[in-house]
Amino acid sequence: MRTLYHFPLSGPSRKVRIALREKELDFDLVLEKPWERRAEFIALNPAGEVPVLVEPHGTVLADGQAICEFLEEVYPQRPLLPRDAPARAEVRRLVGWFDGKFGREVTDALVGEKMLKRMTRRDTPNSALIRLGLTAIRQHLDYIGELAERRRWLGGDEFSLADISAAAHLSTVDYIGDVPWSDFEPAKDWYARIKSRPSFRPILADHVPGAPPPAHYADLDF
Amino acid sequence: MRTLYHFPLSGPSRKVRIALREKELDFDLVLEKPWERRAEFIALNPAGEVPVLVEPHGTVLADGQAICEFLEEVYPQRPLLPRDAPARAEVRRLVGWFDGKFGREVTDALVGEKMLKRMTRRDTPNSALIRLGLTAIRQHLDYIGELAERRRWLGGDEFSLADISAAAHLSTVDYIGDVPWSDFEPAKDWYARIKSRPSFRPILADHVPGAPPPAHYADLDF
Repeated sequence: MRTLYHFPLSGPSRKVRIALREKELDFDLVLEKPWERRAEFIALNPAGEVPVLVEPHGTVLADGQAICEFLEEVYPQRPLLPRDAPARAEVRRLVGWFDGKFGREVTDALVGEKMLKRMTRRDTPNSALIRLGLTAIRQHLDYIGELAERRRWLGGDEFSLADISAAAHLSTVDYIGDVPWSDFEPAKDWYARIKSRPSFRPILADHVPGAPPPAHYADLDF
Repeated sequence: MRTLYHFPLSGPSRKVRIALREKELDFDLVLEKPWERRAEFIALNPAGEVPVLVEPHGTVLADGQAICEFLEEVYPQRPLLPRDAPARAEVRRLVGWFDGKFGREVTDALVGEKMLKRMTRRDTPNSALIRLGLTAIRQHLDYIGELAERRRWLGGDEFSLADISAAAHLSTVDYIGDVPWSDFEPAKDWYARIKSRPSFRPILADHVPGAPPPAHYADLDF
């Protein structure tokens, strides 16, 4: 069986969970708390980061985007990248945007400071960083809305890794109730379409012990 | 003509410069200071980040890794990724390691704090972060050495995007003299091989006005 080592509030973990379901590939989930630095896990991925995917025949894969590119190459059914090179580059540009820029400016500042620091008990939340995150997310929601109004999906005509990366990160921020949806209708409409996809349902059922999500989190009509 | 908007001390810019030269593709360099947020540049890349590549027929590409994947797809000569999927995933895992983990833990902490903050005059360097960066780089050099002793190149038997990503980031730290080479012989031997590649020569000739590199920076026998 295929095994995915993940952590529920990790954007890259969610990205791989969604990609696997879009491709209708079965897998077992193993909850990994990367900050515990479990020796068996470090042996799988010396970076000590989730996600890690172990394929049925034992191939070990790490790094969210590297795993998604692998899945796309090995399981070409239900493609998550367009066919021609400029369109693929556009999707990958947005993947870089959400995994990189959004991750640094928003996810790290909000989910990182408010939740992960509490869970790992390593440090106190940095309120200046949280304020920056709350400002930055508004710019990102504007940009998502702008893309969603111009195209069927964020990266082009087809649903792609651009949508998956954006939704994976955004959903972790939504889990802590920090997405100001009501001010950003076009982004909200796009996210409503994402929420209704079967691949996204397990994400909406996530539940971190001691930190339940707000009521609207799993609601398709939020 | 092909045009690359870059900044000399940006790891992702260097990565694309090296990849273009490995593939023997001609290009013009345009120096871009991303913090100036030039309107014409933001129009090319709303993320406001270097590198941006404009192809001869006008296709605009942004994000270092998205650009490298595009180059690999469109110009398959002198491949920078192996052929089979697990080997490609291994190279991309390391690309993620250097663009992500190394970038956050080392490049941002050292080049970001010591050089970019000074150039942009936005803030004073954070000495606690610099100390963390100086500790982290030692772990990364250990890991590079471990890979280089086990394989011909970092990602496997062939020179690949893993080597390019690692060398691109590391070379920016070397430019400010913060790589403790003498304690890390295997990593140093690998970097010496990188330095002798023709694709790397323009990187070694980089010169930031007012901040010259240390003497060993361009020396092949350092």
